[in-house]
Formats: sequence, structure tokens, C-alpha cells
Amino acid sequence: MEPFEVHILGCGSALPTTRHNASAQVLRIGNKQYMIDCGEGAQLQLRKSHVHFAFINNIFISHLHGDHCFGLLGLISTFGLLGRTAPLHIYSPEPLESLMSPLLNYFCKELTYKVIFHSIDTSKQSIIYEDKSITVESIPQKHRIPCCGFLFREKPKKPHLRGDMMEYYKIPLYLRQSIKEGDDYITPTGELIPNRLLTSKADPSRSYAYCSDTLPCPQNRSIIEGIDLLYHEATFANSEKTRAAATFHSTAGEAARIASDANVKKLIIGHFSSRYTDENILLNEAKELFRNTVLAEEGKVYNIE
Amino acid sequence: MEPFEVHILGCGSALPTTRHNASAQVLRIGNKQYMIDCGEGAQLQLRKSHVHFAFINNIFISHLHGDHCFGLLGLISTFGLLGRTAPLHIYSPEPLESLMSPLLNYFCKELTYKVIFHSIDTSKQSIIYEDKSITVESIPQKHRIPCCGFLFREKPKKPHLRGDMMEYYKIPLYLRQSIKEGDDYITPTGELIPNRLLTSKADPSRSYAYCSDTLPCPQNRSIIEGIDLLYHEATFANSEKTRAAATFHSTAGEAARIASDANVKKLIIGHFSSRYTDENILLNEAKELFRNTVLAEEGKVYNIE
Repeated sequence: MEPFEVHILGCGSALPTTRHNASAQVLRIGNKQYMIDCGEGAQLQLRKSHVHFAFINNIFISHLHGDHCFGLLGLISTFGLLGRTAPLHIYSPEPLESLMSPLLNYFCKELTYKVIFHSIDTSKQSIIYEDKSITVESIPQKHRIPCCGFLFREKPKKPHLRGDMMEYYKIPLYLRQSIKEGDDYITPTGELIPNRLLTSKADPSRSYAYCSDTLPCPQNRSIIEGIDLLYHEATFANSEKTRAAATFHSTAGEAARIASDANVKKLIIGHFSSRYTDENILLNEAKELFRNTVLAEEGKVYNIE
Repeated sequence: MEPFEVHILGCGSALPTTRHNASAQVLRIGNKQYMIDCGEGAQLQLRKSHVHFAFINNIFISHLHGDHCFGLLGLISTFGLLGRTAPLHIYSPEPLESLMSPLLNYFCKELTYKVIFHSIDTSKQSIIYEDKSITVESIPQKHRIPCCGFLFREKPKKPHLRGDMMEYYKIPLYLRQSIKEGDDYITPTGELIPNRLLTSKADPSRSYAYCSDTLPCPQNRSIIEGIDLLYHEATFANSEKTRAAATFHSTAGEAARIASDANVKKLIIGHFSSRYTDENILLNEAKELFRNTVLAEEGKVYNIE
């Protein structure tokens, strides 16, 4: 199966530390790469990872707090110095374009490519991006400013052709695509071979959601129901529940409750407050409610098989 | 003697790599700290160093290319989150204030301190900052956009009081400051003890200049004549002299020639092009013309004794 990987570039919160960078991720699906948030230093983290700059054409920004977008200008500038020509699309709540345009006009006058801003209505779930293989949907979040999560979902895939049957019936290459699409096969002697004998089950469509920064939003349960992998912020331990609520963040236990109620398969927690020098307290609290939880960590890659 | 230390936070050029960060330094003199340039990631590099955020009250920006100033917004924001109250002064060529104000108004609405911008005329040498112990002068540079270097110079210091003589004549404490200022001492019996017997030589006034980014500027020789320490950009090796000239940068040999002609005591070269994976080629070329040359390196501290 093609890779479906979440590369963590940064999973700290507002105050960067020597242990955690500001929020940034790359989701790699096949040979496409989608960036999610772009805190300061994201381009340096990219350099350290095995992600190719050139394959990033779409960046999704959850909200306009600095720790989620201060790395954009440096990244855009570096893409330019590297001679990029493909347009770069940036999806975010408003008013990113009006904030960045004067800077791009000043610092990136000689860009060799176009930067195209798309604004997201964070109040509702809707498809904000689509290509041949995936859709990206916005997930309304509850934060101090407009903020949304992102649900990446592979489109239904075609079944596999059965090599043995192709061989046995000597089915010509030019007919095989139509069989993948569902056609039966008629042999030169007129015999009809039904499609179900010629194909095997398609790979499952995988899904990943990113929810940060936000209060727990149980009302989003149906949106993320049953997905393969959920990244949910867990800025605080359960003991800081009041502080979490006051700052519109979630605790580790709340993140795990969301994962559990929505029957997701696996949970990554991140966006750690700088007060924790060992996030195992967060991990343990989450695991009490949702066993298949892991900690985000810079440089780590989480696969969906 | 009080410390006089250059902390290198970043010494790469426009393209950050896994080996070098964008330009940023902190000059520590006594308990004061002055920041010079502030490329992306400077605040993370600060975290890794032993420099205290709170002691930085003045930032000097050489020019408005991204690799020298994209870290400002994150740093200002972090200072705010840490509850800073002291005003922060930023000295730079125009139009930094007009570029940053909309961002500060949006991202840093709740700053607990003032950010005060000062614009520098990069066309001439002049004192742009002064406090009790130092002056900072602008050094005109030749780059693609207005750019200046900075000369930090300690003011002349007071002589030391000789402990043995204070003791011998039992000179009361309230008179000692005036002796430091040059007064003689008259004993209770009317004997005049001349100042030169009561004091020993003042510590020398130390000096440091930062010159980046620039073509070699031999016309600045008199400004930096005899200084203790010079940081000069050496983006390229001598073989890239044409490229250096075309992009308004210096080669290692040119940096060394500047140091040698101005009789500086020590040279640090930096602002390395990302094409070099081993900067010893630059070091060796510089050393041929100026033996007391060292390579800048992230995390390193260069003292003037």
C-alpha cells in the first residue's frame, strides 16, 4: 500500500522550548505531501526530516496564533530561493492573506511561483480541498479565535486486478483499466467472466484528523467517527482542567474521551504545555481512557498501514 | 574583568540547513545583552544558550532580508508570553516598523510591554545607541538593499583603586569614588598623596564590530581600526569571487583582507553559503591573509579577555 504517514515537525504549544518546536506537521499520502500548521522553525524541521520541500503544494493553517503560522514567511521565502515554480496553496481562517501580502511584497518580491490564499469558514464542516485521491474537510473547533481542525480522507479506491486471472485469460492490457472500473470480461470464444472473479478487494480508504487548538468538542463525534488516526491537542494534564478550559485547550483525559467516544483507531496527543518536562503524565492519563494513545514527538513518523 | 562575549545563535546565510541557522547573535557585556540580527529560530537558539531573555533590551537589525529578521515576531511574542514589562528597542533600516506594526497589532494585541522602533540611516557612520557603558555606531555596508554593520565600543573606564594604598592611608569609603574620578588624597596631617599612587590602570575599553551582509568595504578601515574582535561575513570561498560580487557578499579572503588592513586583533567569519558542508576551506583561505581567524559556529561563545 502507498504510504500514509504523519510527520511531526513540532508539537509544543505557544512557548517553544529546547524539547518542542511550535506546531507543524506534514501528512504524506503516496507521493503527495500536505502541510498542517507552520510554526516558527517548520522549515528547519523539514530539513531534518525526509520530507521533500518540492512535494508540498498545500498548507492548512488551523488558526492565526503565532505558534501555528509564524514559520510561513520563512518557508515561502526558502521555496523561492530554491527556484520553485508550482503554485503554493494556503488554506486558513481570515485574514491571513491581508496580513501576509505586504510582507510577501516586501521580502519576496522576486518569487518564482504564486502563493494562493484560500479562506476557510471555521464555523462549519465542509470540503475545503479535493484532488484525485483525497478530500480535506474542515472540523469546527472551539478556541479563543476562529479555528478549525482538518479531516483528511482517501477517496474509495479501485479493486486490485488479480494477476493470476489476467494471466489465465490472457486479458490484453488495454482492457484492464475498464475491468478495474467494474467491467466484466468476454473471452474471444464469447464466455463472460464476471468482474468479481477478476479482481480482489480494494485497499481500504484511510483517514486522519488534526484537532488543535480546541476545547473538547463532543459535537464533532460524527465527523471523526471510526477514523484511523486522530491527532488531538492535550496541552494540559487533568489537574489543569480549569486552566485548560479558561484558555480554550484540552486536557489529556479530554482528548482521550473524544477518541474513545468516536471509536477512532489510534490517538496521537500533542501541543504540550512547556510546563511538562516529561509528557508521560499526559500519556498515562490519556491511556486510562483510550489505550491506543501515543505521544507526538519531533522527527517521529506515524504510519497508517 | 566583566564578560564581553559574542554568542553565535546562527551563522548561516539565506538558506537554512541542518548545520546552520539564520543570522542572530547576542553580545553580552557585563550584565547587559544586545541582540544583533534575528533570523528565524533565534528564540529557539536563545533557549539553547545560556542567555537570559529578560536581559535583552536592544536589538540591532543590519538589514531587512528575511534571514536577518524573520525571527523578530516570534521573539516579541514569546517575550510577551513571559510577562516582560521592560520596553524593547529595535534599531534597523526602514521600513521595519511599518512592516511589523500590522502584525504586532494582530498577533500581539495583549503585549505587556512596548516595542519601540528606531530607524537607522545606513549611509553614514553615526552613534545610534549609547548607555552608561557603551556606544553603538552604524557602519555603512554595501549590499543589495540598505544595510549597516555595528561597532560596539566600551566607554573609557575608571582606574582601579589600589587596595594596598586604601588600607595604608586608611582612606574613608566616602572619598574613594572621587579618587576613582581623579582626585588626589590629603591625609589628616595635610600630606598630599597624588592620584597616580592611589590608582592602577583602568581596564582597556573593548570593541566588537559586526559586518554582514556586505561587499568588502575598505573605506570603513578607519572605523574598525585596531578593534578587538570583528565578525565579518564570508559567504563564499575565493573561487566564488564573481558570484560574491554579483550578490553583494564577501569571500573569506576578502574578509581576512579587511581584518588585516584594519589591524583588528581577531576575526570571526560567518554567514556561510549552504553550499559548503565543511567551512574549513573558508577558514584556510582567510588564515592565509589573517592568521587569527576562527569560524563562527552555533552555540559557541567568543570572549574578549
